[in-house]
Amino acid sequence: MNETLELLNRHTSVRQFQDKPVSDEQLAAIIGAGQMASTSSNVQAYSVIAVTEPGLKAQLSALSGNQAYIEQCPVFLVWCADLYRLREAAAPHLQGAPSYEDSTENLIVATVDVALAAQNAAVAAESLGLGIVYIGGVRNNIAALSELLGLPELVYPVFGMCLGYPAAVNGVRPRLPLQAVLHHNGYNAEAAIQQAGVYDGISRDYMRERTGGQSEASWSEIMAKRQAQPSRMHMKEFLLGKGFMQR
Amino acid sequence: MNETLELLNRHTSVRQFQDKPVSDEQLAAIIGAGQMASTSSNVQAYSVIAVTEPGLKAQLSALSGNQAYIEQCPVFLVWCADLYRLREAAAPHLQGAPSYEDSTENLIVATVDVALAAQNAAVAAESLGLGIVYIGGVRNNIAALSELLGLPELVYPVFGMCLGYPAAVNGVRPRLPLQAVLHHNGYNAEAAIQQAGVYDGISRDYMRERTGGQSEASWSEIMAKRQAQPSRMHMKEFLLGKGFMQR
Repeated sequence: MNETLELLNRHTSVRQFQDKPVSDEQLAAIIGAGQMASTSSNVQAYSVIAVTEPGLKAQLSALSGNQAYIEQCPVFLVWCADLYRLREAAAPHLQGAPSYEDSTENLIVATVDVALAAQNAAVAAESLGLGIVYIGGVRNNIAALSELLGLPELVYPVFGMCLGYPAAVNGVRPRLPLQAVLHHNGYNAEAAIQQAGVYDGISRDYMRERTGGQSEASWSEIMAKRQAQPSRMHMKEFLLGKGFMQR
Repeated sequence: MNETLELLNRHTSVRQFQDKPVSDEQLAAIIGAGQMASTSSNVQAYSVIAVTEPGLKAQLSALSGNQAYIEQCPVFLVWCADLYRLREAAAPHLQGAPSYEDSTENLIVATVDVALAAQNAAVAAESLGLGIVYIGGVRNNIAALSELLGLPELVYPVFGMCLGYPAAVNGVRPRLPLQAVLHHNGYNAEAAIQQAGVYDGISRDYMRERTGGQSEASWSEIMAKRQAQPSRMHMKEFLLGKGFMQR
């Protein structure tokens, strides 16, 4: 196994950070590596806001579920799907002709673009000895958070990412068996569900060990609890209001 | 610069492949590394279909814009957002209680999940000396392609990925200046647009060199042409029909 594969295979989310800054050079190397990810037809439809001001981090934390590591990490990155820059750059050449940034297709394009760039950045950060955790909580109060960061229309925060030197590293969490996610020449629903059942046993053991016997919930039980809770039901209205997926 | 950063920084899409197979072990290592990417609350809301049957690859190519490399590559991966496996696994524990896979929030969750996994897989593949290119064309005829692969409801193909040994490697394409995508403590629209203008000069030079003087279109001109064309306007209706973003 090569160095990069080893790095990918030991990934865990980091939620405790040392009180040690990330340099501008490191940040540039990390975001620069993010930019080298593939992008749909070179649209590069994303932006990232690096938040280092303590007061602003505290406000973002309060809006994102009060996760202490958002305040604790030296740099909090807010990764945004961004069709605004694209529209503004293209506009002078369009001479008033219609433009299709507002389609559902372009929402998908921008959401994929930002995720590819962010994952490359995550790998780059880990290769430098830093740690990260993705924060879906930036969508908890997405309108207020967008206003706080001055995000224009056709820009939405997809996820946050805490960045810094790890103060503690968790064990690697087992994933679904390969056969639950990898299909050959067609979707095999039976195998996927059956293998999810196999994972229930694995995840139960993992939970038992991780919680010192406090919990032995299986994956499908945890997922059922999660899916039974309405979560961020404002997303459709918010995206429509920001000019996304009008058609 | 470490080995992983060097790898990320020399990424280019590969569109010509050697007639040389990818082994099952390599595929397992690549998809397995993909699985190690972060996933929202461990939902792992994605599946990947590895297509190796020549006849099926030809059909997929025809549906995806007749791109020759889809037929030529030894393995064509179709990466899917997948909330079906999650719903089916959770259902027995819900005893008929409502479940929220059909929210716009969960469409975003699944779309991000699959992109993070795919990008990790792309990096893993490149670390093994293989090459990839993402194929948005799987959304060209998304309904027919989904039927061909037997994708159930709450599953949609987000992008394809050709995988194989490169027969030719392009030069690295320059990206937007860092300052066009990286903002500090708030969105800076003026800087983003101004830096996109700087990129116009860079991309014009790149196009001139790459096409031997045949084209010297700038990025914003190319983007304007792209955005003026309606593209995959069926996506909203298709996703709604597959049970996504009902609310």
